[in-house]
Amino acid sequence: MHYPLENIKVLDMTRVLAGPYCTMVLADLGAEVIKLESPGTGDDSRAFGPYIEDESAYFMSLNRNKESFTLNLKNDKAKEIFKELIKKVDVVVENFKPGTMEKLGLGYDVLKELNPQLIYAASSGFGHTGPYSDRPAYDGVIQAMGGIMSITGQKGGEPTRVGPSVADIFSGLFTAIGILSSINKRSFTGVGAKVDVSMLDCQVGILENAIARYFVTGNSPKPEGNKHASIVPFEPFDTSDGKIMVAAGNDKLFGYFCNLIGTPELIKDERFATNPMRNKNYDALRPLIAEQMLKRSTAEWKVALIEAGVPSGPINNVEMVVTDEQVLFRNMIQEVHHPKIGMSHLPGIPIKISGVDDNIRFAAPMLGQHNEKILSEYLGYSKEEVDKLKEGGVL
Amino acid sequence: MHYPLENIKVLDMTRVLAGPYCTMVLADLGAEVIKLESPGTGDDSRAFGPYIEDESAYFMSLNRNKESFTLNLKNDKAKEIFKELIKKVDVVVENFKPGTMEKLGLGYDVLKELNPQLIYAASSGFGHTGPYSDRPAYDGVIQAMGGIMSITGQKGGEPTRVGPSVADIFSGLFTAIGILSSINKRSFTGVGAKVDVSMLDCQVGILENAIARYFVTGNSPKPEGNKHASIVPFEPFDTSDGKIMVAAGNDKLFGYFCNLIGTPELIKDERFATNPMRNKNYDALRPLIAEQMLKRSTAEWKVALIEAGVPSGPINNVEMVVTDEQVLFRNMIQEVHHPKIGMSHLPGIPIKISGVDDNIRFAAPMLGQHNEKILSEYLGYSKEEVDKLKEGGVL
Repeated sequence: MHYPLENIKVLDMTRVLAGPYCTMVLADLGAEVIKLESPGTGDDSRAFGPYIEDESAYFMSLNRNKESFTLNLKNDKAKEIFKELIKKVDVVVENFKPGTMEKLGLGYDVLKELNPQLIYAASSGFGHTGPYSDRPAYDGVIQAMGGIMSITGQKGGEPTRVGPSVADIFSGLFTAIGILSSINKRSFTGVGAKVDVSMLDCQVGILENAIARYFVTGNSPKPEGNKHASIVPFEPFDTSDGKIMVAAGNDKLFGYFCNLIGTPELIKDERFATNPMRNKNYDALRPLIAEQMLKRSTAEWKVALIEAGVPSGPINNVEMVVTDEQVLFRNMIQEVHHPKIGMSHLPGIPIKISGVDDNIRFAAPMLGQHNEKILSEYLGYSKEEVDKLKEGGVL
Repeated sequence: MHYPLENIKVLDMTRVLAGPYCTMVLADLGAEVIKLESPGTGDDSRAFGPYIEDESAYFMSLNRNKESFTLNLKNDKAKEIFKELIKKVDVVVENFKPGTMEKLGLGYDVLKELNPQLIYAASSGFGHTGPYSDRPAYDGVIQAMGGIMSITGQKGGEPTRVGPSVADIFSGLFTAIGILSSINKRSFTGVGAKVDVSMLDCQVGILENAIARYFVTGNSPKPEGNKHASIVPFEPFDTSDGKIMVAAGNDKLFGYFCNLIGTPELIKDERFATNPMRNKNYDALRPLIAEQMLKRSTAEWKVALIEAGVPSGPINNVEMVVTDEQVLFRNMIQEVHHPKIGMSHLPGIPIKISGVDDNIRFAAPMLGQHNEKILSEYLGYSKEEVDKLKEGGVL
């Protein structure tokens, strides 16, 4: 056994982001993920830009290491095949609007009769229970309703949406954790479970100290800009040609920092002697630091701050990130050969495990690329039978 | 077996956020988590505000469902006890600066000899390998270096730090997934592993389509404000008394929306007939919608948009989130009794699994609260022996 999940077979009915992110994480760790798609169009995100030779780079980045199998689930023969496959897999994952699987006659109650060991995982906007359960949702709606926008943004400014679709991604990760935990339990009990993860619940779960602050003070926190709420100095400063983030998290680091920037007198200044004092006298301290930081370039400060042992870093744009020497050393940007477009660049696998290869195994599939393979391996169909299913509109 | 991880014992050496978030997720699903702390002060975050009766509400929210055990790891007898405990647990988790465990003589190479089944998991700023490995990091530094700030913010505005410490939290979640995957593999091989998760790697892994966009276009994406990069209308609009997020993700939803706001003529207007056209003619369309949205209050639009089937939601502040009827229905705000402060409010558990109780089992521990219990249960110490260790400065 090489990959930690290579014994796990996943039937993946998910589309776009939250669900596909979950199954990508499982696939990256070696699970066999069969991506079930509608014939003709497939996952909606196959149509999302940006494109390379008519193939969606967005789809490619989320669906590497998965196989594509098409089934027209409105067709009775297709439903029969689906039910046969359910008996052969460990996990099914879907991110439909709640009720969709039941309408297809393929709800958890039906599937668990076919395979009592099945782990059925659903990621949805609001969850499978509660008054909002049947509402449609997108990442933007959940970021708005979940509170993260209300505490992100410049001080005094507008609530701000987080750039990446973190409401989807968090839901994908929590769903993966629910699946893996249930697999652990199943190895003792022999019985599967339904995992029900709501994007809105996940947002509540990641609000971090904002919830504690609200319950202690009775006030809703507001956007704090780029400055830490209670540590000083802990924010970006302008340099002669850009910006750099400085995070002097304690008195020792503040001392290193003051010596470096040529203001050792600040260390002994009683207004700035402790972090609570630096918070209190922030308006006096900030300009004194800011004046010094303007004297050198970002590149110069980058080196000097590291040498001085002060936690710090540039505010990288995406180009700087994907060419960063640590990012490259950690194999976090990978070249993957795609059958149609040739070489593509994808984000790597952030979970590094001793003795486990962290290379992406294969590129995202073309629609229906593995129809014959899946039907033959799992259900013993011949090539002729597969061709017949294709002609009949089943695949 | 009730909880999915109740067979898993975790020795938790983590402090503050990324590591404690990881072990909280495991504890919430039933793992027995022994939080190892330094005598006297414990986890740094015990000193982080806000406070309730001198107890940190921040610490409480991250350390529920864990037991506290103090060990002075500079003491030889304490190291001996640590090594005995290592033989009895499944997982050890740490989020020290790389090299710290080796300096203590407790690196992975030492521990795996004591317990070949051990899963050793480390979460660090930059990972245990590579040129930046030994640099200190805080969430703010990693958000800056990892690119998320460069694509978050108002259009044309400053790169913006995400309010919650998402660099820490993502790292905690990926670490949990690495641990659970390795537990699955161990059930076949009988052998443990080292899981090495870097906060910076995780940020690369969640940049989503920003990386694809960069490699296709050669340009680094910029902050897009609160508007979706390629769907129109998909952004917040001002109402007569606030704002509301509208996400009409396709032509059908755009039709529902235009009828609702009293501008059915927009549906047939060829400038707005398809999503690509709405993107192209955004500057003409937005004011026409914005004018209508100003005519009713957020509360009125909230109801009307739901009835019309248009994905939408208010931009909730934290008070609105923690009193939202769906959030409460899903048990996402829980009252937990704390031995010192009485009733406290904590975010609930976002992973709902059939047949598994989703209530928090017990409040965060006082420092060293479980010293006697752990030493007795795991290593058979008597009360007298424990008292002696206390006097000797071991605990």
